[in-house]
Amino acid sequence: MDSTPKPAHGFIKVRFQPTGQAVFVPSGETVLAAAGEAGLELHTPCGGRGTCGSCRVVFASTPPDPTPDELTLLSKAELASGLRLACRAPLLKDSTIDVPPSTLRKDSKFLLHGIMRNVELAPAVSKVALALPPPSLEDQRSDADRLVGALSAAGVAAEADPGALLTLPSSLREGAFTVTAVVHGGRVTAVEPGDTSDELYAVAFDIGTTTVVGMLLNLRTGAECAVAARTNPQVSYGDDVVSRIGFAALDGGLTKLQSAIVSCINDIIAELSAAASVPPERIYQAVFCGNTSMNHFLLGIDPAYVAQAPYVAAVRAAVEVPAGALGIRVARAGRALTLPNVAGFVGSDTVAMMLAADYAHSDKLRLAIDIGTNGEIVLGNRKRLLCASTAAGPAFEGARIRHGMRAASGAIESVSIADGRLKIETINGGAPVGICGTGLIDAVAALLDAGLVDSTGRLLTGEDAAGTPELKKRISENDFGPHFVLATVEEGAARTVFLTQRDIRELQLAKAAIRAGITILLKEFGVGWQDLDEVLLAGAFGNYIKKESALRVGLLPPLPPDKITQIGNAAGTGAKIVALDSRLLAEADALSLAARYVELAGRADFQHIFAESMLFE
Amino acid sequence: MDSTPKPAHGFIKVRFQPTGQAVFVPSGETVLAAAGEAGLELHTPCGGRGTCGSCRVVFASTPPDPTPDELTLLSKAELASGLRLACRAPLLKDSTIDVPPSTLRKDSKFLLHGIMRNVELAPAVSKVALALPPPSLEDQRSDADRLVGALSAAGVAAEADPGALLTLPSSLREGAFTVTAVVHGGRVTAVEPGDTSDELYAVAFDIGTTTVVGMLLNLRTGAECAVAARTNPQVSYGDDVVSRIGFAALDGGLTKLQSAIVSCINDIIAELSAAASVPPERIYQAVFCGNTSMNHFLLGIDPAYVAQAPYVAAVRAAVEVPAGALGIRVARAGRALTLPNVAGFVGSDTVAMMLAADYAHSDKLRLAIDIGTNGEIVLGNRKRLLCASTAAGPAFEGARIRHGMRAASGAIESVSIADGRLKIETINGGAPVGICGTGLIDAVAALLDAGLVDSTGRLLTGEDAAGTPELKKRISENDFGPHFVLATVEEGAARTVFLTQRDIRELQLAKAAIRAGITILLKEFGVGWQDLDEVLLAGAFGNYIKKESALRVGLLPPLPPDKITQIGNAAGTGAKIVALDSRLLAEADALSLAARYVELAGRADFQHIFAESMLFE
Repeated sequence: MDSTPKPAHGFIKVRFQPTGQAVFVPSGETVLAAAGEAGLELHTPCGGRGTCGSCRVVFASTPPDPTPDELTLLSKAELASGLRLACRAPLLKDSTIDVPPSTLRKDSKFLLHGIMRNVELAPAVSKVALALPPPSLEDQRSDADRLVGALSAAGVAAEADPGALLTLPSSLREGAFTVTAVVHGGRVTAVEPGDTSDELYAVAFDIGTTTVVGMLLNLRTGAECAVAARTNPQVSYGDDVVSRIGFAALDGGLTKLQSAIVSCINDIIAELSAAASVPPERIYQAVFCGNTSMNHFLLGIDPAYVAQAPYVAAVRAAVEVPAGALGIRVARAGRALTLPNVAGFVGSDTVAMMLAADYAHSDKLRLAIDIGTNGEIVLGNRKRLLCASTAAGPAFEGARIRHGMRAASGAIESVSIADGRLKIETINGGAPVGICGTGLIDAVAALLDAGLVDSTGRLLTGEDAAGTPELKKRISENDFGPHFVLATVEEGAARTVFLTQRDIRELQLAKAAIRAGITILLKEFGVGWQDLDEVLLAGAFGNYIKKESALRVGLLPPLPPDKITQIGNAAGTGAKIVALDSRLLAEADALSLAARYVELAGRADFQHIFAESMLFE
Repeated sequence: MDSTPKPAHGFIKVRFQPTGQAVFVPSGETVLAAAGEAGLELHTPCGGRGTCGSCRVVFASTPPDPTPDELTLLSKAELASGLRLACRAPLLKDSTIDVPPSTLRKDSKFLLHGIMRNVELAPAVSKVALALPPPSLEDQRSDADRLVGALSAAGVAAEADPGALLTLPSSLREGAFTVTAVVHGGRVTAVEPGDTSDELYAVAFDIGTTTVVGMLLNLRTGAECAVAARTNPQVSYGDDVVSRIGFAALDGGLTKLQSAIVSCINDIIAELSAAASVPPERIYQAVFCGNTSMNHFLLGIDPAYVAQAPYVAAVRAAVEVPAGALGIRVARAGRALTLPNVAGFVGSDTVAMMLAADYAHSDKLRLAIDIGTNGEIVLGNRKRLLCASTAAGPAFEGARIRHGMRAASGAIESVSIADGRLKIETINGGAPVGICGTGLIDAVAALLDAGLVDSTGRLLTGEDAAGTPELKKRISENDFGPHFVLATVEEGAARTVFLTQRDIRELQLAKAAIRAGITILLKEFGVGWQDLDEVLLAGAFGNYIKKESALRVGLLPPLPPDKITQIGNAAGTGAKIVALDSRLLAEADALSLAARYVELAGRADFQHIFAESMLFE
């Protein structure tokens, strides 16, 4: 399953800015098609037929000659500035393309980028180029002593790793005694012939239960050179963490889970490497975050006891191993680092989120939530931190919803009622096929506002129904019980898409789980929601959710929307900044120890608070 | 080629004291046969027929009933004290046998034991048994944090190694939270269920070009539990270091050399393990010394540049790697340690010799020589150390000598002339077959004393010949030129064994190489041989050589014999004491850096001094 793009005769390399993705495409392909390859979805209301002029992009390099459509739709000044239409402009040579935010559709597949706190460039791995004096009968020092002596003279105290010795004699002579030492944690881990000091890279990964995102980082400049994402192939062995822990207990199960994630990581590395033209042997570190079980699977440690009371992990702390020991294909001397976890159900992804959001230095009382199948919640400031994990279930990902689907083309992602009329939007603007998590929250928020759903979550039917006649028409009852029709074939949908009473109950369960977690953490902290300075929503779902709808359905306490910040893939950002500034690893460890884990299920008040949270306010 | 003794039904375990070898033999086998299995050669003038009463041994455990021969040859008091004849007494149950020095023949095969300086027991690896509090909902610390916390409470600051994490969850639960942490260099390298703290072992190896000797050490008591030796299987790829370096340069050559030595080491470990009933998984460290190229081969590092001017090694310093990374079969978390070298032709065996002879603390001016195919020479004291390597060639090992042979049964090992008559002794007292290195030196010394060889090394023939008529009769000339007959078939030899003029020249070349090295080191140091406080002779050859003969032929400067000490396998002892007291590794490193290597071939005066050293004084 190696789908790595590779350069070949007649292929063009195209890089998209500001996101940094780079892909290879056949010469003559349109920018729109290349963007698709790169995982970018552009705004194309006309379907890419060159008629609406929406898919505007800017060539940073020399643009191709304008096509007739572009001459019609764009001004001379625009054309002169390098502006082109992605659906028309052909790629004829290696190009860099700027994609303005207005042209970029929300990325419905993966959230690749997160917030960024200021970090300094101080990676764990560094390079020192050295011109060594060649040996002579008067200077018969061993190759290793010669190297260590020159490093010492350059102000670097480091011993040579056994692994570096294997190729040291040939590297020294191949480079005519000019070599570059790779130094990691006070050890020379590799010696490369010649001066390669400018080629210093790392990768950072967020290993989600469902999605794995990798970033290639230039450790000389701090730049992110490429981003890529894939579905975690472990899904074949179980959709959620607990079922995978069960699979790990089977004969050979743990090995299969480890091989699957390592193979996925290697595929992503190969893709990043090809996209940025950085050979894997110049990648010296791989930093990983993920939930506690994903961490354990990657390291090949059985997380069996995470799934059984008292839910204990094998390891909390960060673990560093040779990347090769895990089968990860980077430089031979590369190291793999897993960030510290908090507890069995609060992993290093949450620690990475705390790190990215700079919890260690903030006096503000902040609530951060990463909503997925499990919702991880952090509350606190630099003085005190509480965290919890709550089982929201898969409703926000469209599962267990009658017409639910993942956030993909055709999914209803936005629902509103204005002037008594229903308005829906789908991802990519196509014919509605189903509804995704954000659409579900939008829909229930709109029905609540319109008085069609009451505070207990009941969809009002028959005599109880409120709203305009047009809306009432959409309320019906059939074999699936009471439901509200969102789109019909007559309205252009691929099929009738409706929301059932049971769907609303699923949403209530999911939001109640998160909200109960928030309530208990606030209670445990001894504050009220009014005391919150800010709420941070992380992860793909948290990033695309409409704040107002999330507030309306009571997923969040009734704060003013401007107190809510969507921070994107904060976990990936946390892994990335540890690669850029290794000193942050100590900060991550301190956060992981400081954050007190609150076991929700172990509390006497959980059921009561959960039941209360089911209601709509 | 696995000849490891393994316990089996009907097998008896017998241990010999004070040397500590232990072997398994079939029930009913004689002590003499068992001693042979253990590599011990007992004094048996009658050939083991129960007639001479020489092979006396003492049963430390209950002895078997005396045989008729023993009732005849031994007194009642002797029998009552457990004394028996090795060639008669059967082994009927597990036994410990004391072998008095008078019964033990010189071990002609391997020198297993060396001198011993006083060392403290402070191994690099230690064990801490811990009873951990089991986890609960109130104490959800990870397994690793729980372990590290308990270690810290026990006063041991150590982090858990990634390797130890893999089995940590199961070890904790298998041992009901009573476990033993294996701690090595501030890291927990393994966690074993239950309390295994008494089972802590290491192995120490001296890897010679020809012979590999291994010792099993109990790190709780400091005791040497077993010793075993094998021929270095790399001899198939070349007899000497330089030819093996040439073989390493061939495709796959280095890998073959490494596999060969690792397989030999594993065979020895299996033998030691079975002999002492210590499972290999309780051996946590393997310490190695050997010449620089042997060190490199073991680590899989190509020593190509050792063989080319300016003769540079890849690595001088000690190297520690996971034993498993080299394929060495000890505990999974076991570490392999190679001791530091000095230079391309002065290896860690010489450093180990300096360590064993306590050069770091001695004010005496001492000369230490390990004579083999190469002679390594050390001169100095705690303030200043010089060393050199000199190519003596294989004459001392019986090669390039007309009737030369290795020190084995039938080799003439002692030659003397008293009252004008020649007297020879062979190893094991059998019929003469050839002559070994010590016999060669003895023979030439005796011929010099008798005036049959002049100071230039010429064997005086015809009119020039001196000595008694009986001796003169032995001087002859044939196709091989002038020669001196040592033994004839009529005298009981297996064949006529003689010493040729050319043999004497070979000896002159060999002794001149050593002596020139000594002279140059003394000159470089700015002292005369009269200033020497002591000369230490190490290694098998150095241990069995007759001091007076070595002095007579001028291998050594004309010191009084009481200034010469034979210190046995000092290299092996050096490796052993580093395993017992890890702090000595720093001392070894300091010695390896302090010892200034003197390149003999690079000196203008070498040829002149070498030529002078050819003469007999």
